[in-house]
Amino acid sequence: MKIIEPTLLLDPNKCRANIRLMAEKAERNGLFFRPHFKTHQSKEIGRWFREFGVEAITVSSLNMARYFAADGWKDITVAFPVNLLEINKINQLAAAVQLNLLAVNPEPVRNLRALLKHPIGLFIKIEVGTRRTGLLPEDRAGIEAVLKEIEQSKKIKFKGFLTHAGHAYASRSKEAIQKVHEFATAKLKELKKKYRSSYPGLIISIGDTPTCSLAENWEGVDEIRPGNFVFYDLMQWQIGTCSFDQIAVALACPVVAKHSDRQEVITYGGAVHLSTDRLTTKKGTNCFGLPFFLNGHSWNLPDGESFLRSISQEHGVIKASPSFFAKVKTGDVVGILPVHSCLTTDLAGYFQTTAGRRIEKQLHSSK
Amino acid sequence: MKIIEPTLLLDPNKCRANIRLMAEKAERNGLFFRPHFKTHQSKEIGRWFREFGVEAITVSSLNMARYFAADGWKDITVAFPVNLLEINKINQLAAAVQLNLLAVNPEPVRNLRALLKHPIGLFIKIEVGTRRTGLLPEDRAGIEAVLKEIEQSKKIKFKGFLTHAGHAYASRSKEAIQKVHEFATAKLKELKKKYRSSYPGLIISIGDTPTCSLAENWEGVDEIRPGNFVFYDLMQWQIGTCSFDQIAVALACPVVAKHSDRQEVITYGGAVHLSTDRLTTKKGTNCFGLPFFLNGHSWNLPDGESFLRSISQEHGVIKASPSFFAKVKTGDVVGILPVHSCLTTDLAGYFQTTAGRRIEKQLHSSK
Repeated sequence: MKIIEPTLLLDPNKCRANIRLMAEKAERNGLFFRPHFKTHQSKEIGRWFREFGVEAITVSSLNMARYFAADGWKDITVAFPVNLLEINKINQLAAAVQLNLLAVNPEPVRNLRALLKHPIGLFIKIEVGTRRTGLLPEDRAGIEAVLKEIEQSKKIKFKGFLTHAGHAYASRSKEAIQKVHEFATAKLKELKKKYRSSYPGLIISIGDTPTCSLAENWEGVDEIRPGNFVFYDLMQWQIGTCSFDQIAVALACPVVAKHSDRQEVITYGGAVHLSTDRLTTKKGTNCFGLPFFLNGHSWNLPDGESFLRSISQEHGVIKASPSFFAKVKTGDVVGILPVHSCLTTDLAGYFQTTAGRRIEKQLHSSK
Repeated sequence: MKIIEPTLLLDPNKCRANIRLMAEKAERNGLFFRPHFKTHQSKEIGRWFREFGVEAITVSSLNMARYFAADGWKDITVAFPVNLLEINKINQLAAAVQLNLLAVNPEPVRNLRALLKHPIGLFIKIEVGTRRTGLLPEDRAGIEAVLKEIEQSKKIKFKGFLTHAGHAYASRSKEAIQKVHEFATAKLKELKKKYRSSYPGLIISIGDTPTCSLAENWEGVDEIRPGNFVFYDLMQWQIGTCSFDQIAVALACPVVAKHSDRQEVITYGGAVHLSTDRLTTKKGTNCFGLPFFLNGHSWNLPDGESFLRSISQEHGVIKASPSFFAKVKTGDVVGILPVHSCLTTDLAGYFQTTAGRRIEKQLHSSK
């Protein structure tokens, strides 16, 4: 398919290599691999994971759970605090699949008890430094208030403790990532030790791409739930989690104007295609993506100098290196490595593979 | 319709009042009002403008032009540098409507000449400080290179000079906005003066919500193209362009967790619903939206203390005032005034009015 407008490209070889690497790491470390599917949101890409033995998944919403359940996934964790307003979706899903939900406060669990029609699993979300949501590992009263609600239900099974070390994204070295990982696993292992006599089957579940990519010590951890690694992106590259070569998606953008006075190039491709997530460069300026020349089925790497310095709704502004500027013409299509592949993918209607094939995904409008 | 998941609410009364105010301002100042429809992206909301005499519109892509042409709009400016890769869409549209495009460089105009099947209008985009795209007003050689290409075509009519003072968004006072406006209009009026003997019908077209909302002196300007004013948002509120009461959209978000240790509230509603556009508060922290309590058909105003301090893919983290925290419960639905209504709307599948009616819009997946 000829590219005439902003189009999300996918290199299936890079993507499968990323899946293989993580599946092998999980196997090597005796970890149950429950990948997060919020990054790709595609039934077809989901099926690629089956080739590597994956049978259980993580998603970020009940709508996403329904999308993947419809493709035959039978064991799904919705890694988001349970939203009782969606009880009908919960009951429909729980009737059809092993559904695992998350709790932070006792009140929603109490209400869930009354409304639930089929068995579910429930994790307690633990906060290890991200300051998003979860109970502090030291908050035993909070944890036990949730456990007390769980015990009063025959339909809710306590699955264990789950965390997301999202603050690993602020790290800039393997050592810093390792530190985040050690703290998170230590805290969860303490909880496991304390509660496993009462709940013999309980597990601890960890999930973020930086630690799952870089950390080496997984002793005592039961499950991992990384998601972003399927595509990686410039945020991961900046952390040191991946190389340019591992980034499996890029936004193809028509070049619509050139400004020789400021060596800048205007793309059709902006915030509604990439999101406004940005990196800060070493010089302190914003970077919304790195451009490169498309070369049929293979991608050239960014030149290390040119970058997307600004975006608005549909425009991107590339600050170009002299050689990039000299080579690029209006009417060309260039590739942009995205800063945050989860959000860029969320904005796309579909993927186009490097071989020109269209791969469907969940549409944003169905969320 | 009961709200169970993040849902974009629209107050039609606030929206119509915003349209009326801008239509009256245009009329009072003898300006042709060609509103930008990229903010709402909805055929139905587009029809509301007809009640105020609007007959011509601005859009940001050819796909959006097709969406509105299908609803009977016959005079459409695509305020984006012409993308020759979409020549088939250009020819289809030009056969059906008065289509106006934008040029920055001579090369695309030369190619357009060869490929065009029906007459179009063409504006030259002028850069007045935004540093996005456009020729500098002093770049007479650049302007005349484009004009030379236009002159060689019987199908391309030169319409005039168009600018977007996007840097007005960086202003924080009416005086600063006024300065941006005066500079932009002075530059365009100079160009009009110089070229109107050769092109007697040429116009100058200005378009951004801050200057169109606040500037008073419109002498010599022919056309305005603001878009965001239809809903306004917190970015405009911070500039001083609107009051909270004029903001016509809000994201309704279920409350899924409460953290009493840090007085924070977790919403189902994050970056895939609001976008990651942010304000910087006076204390230097990020603000991704302002929460308020929904009150049936009317909205309460934000309390001035509580704010969305962080978002990830589906989560929002509200730093709550003591009274907000005390009042809110898991299972409630709160409203969030968005930082950037264009991007928040772009992410929504539809609008739900304060009266509970669903209003359709262009779906992101169709872009």
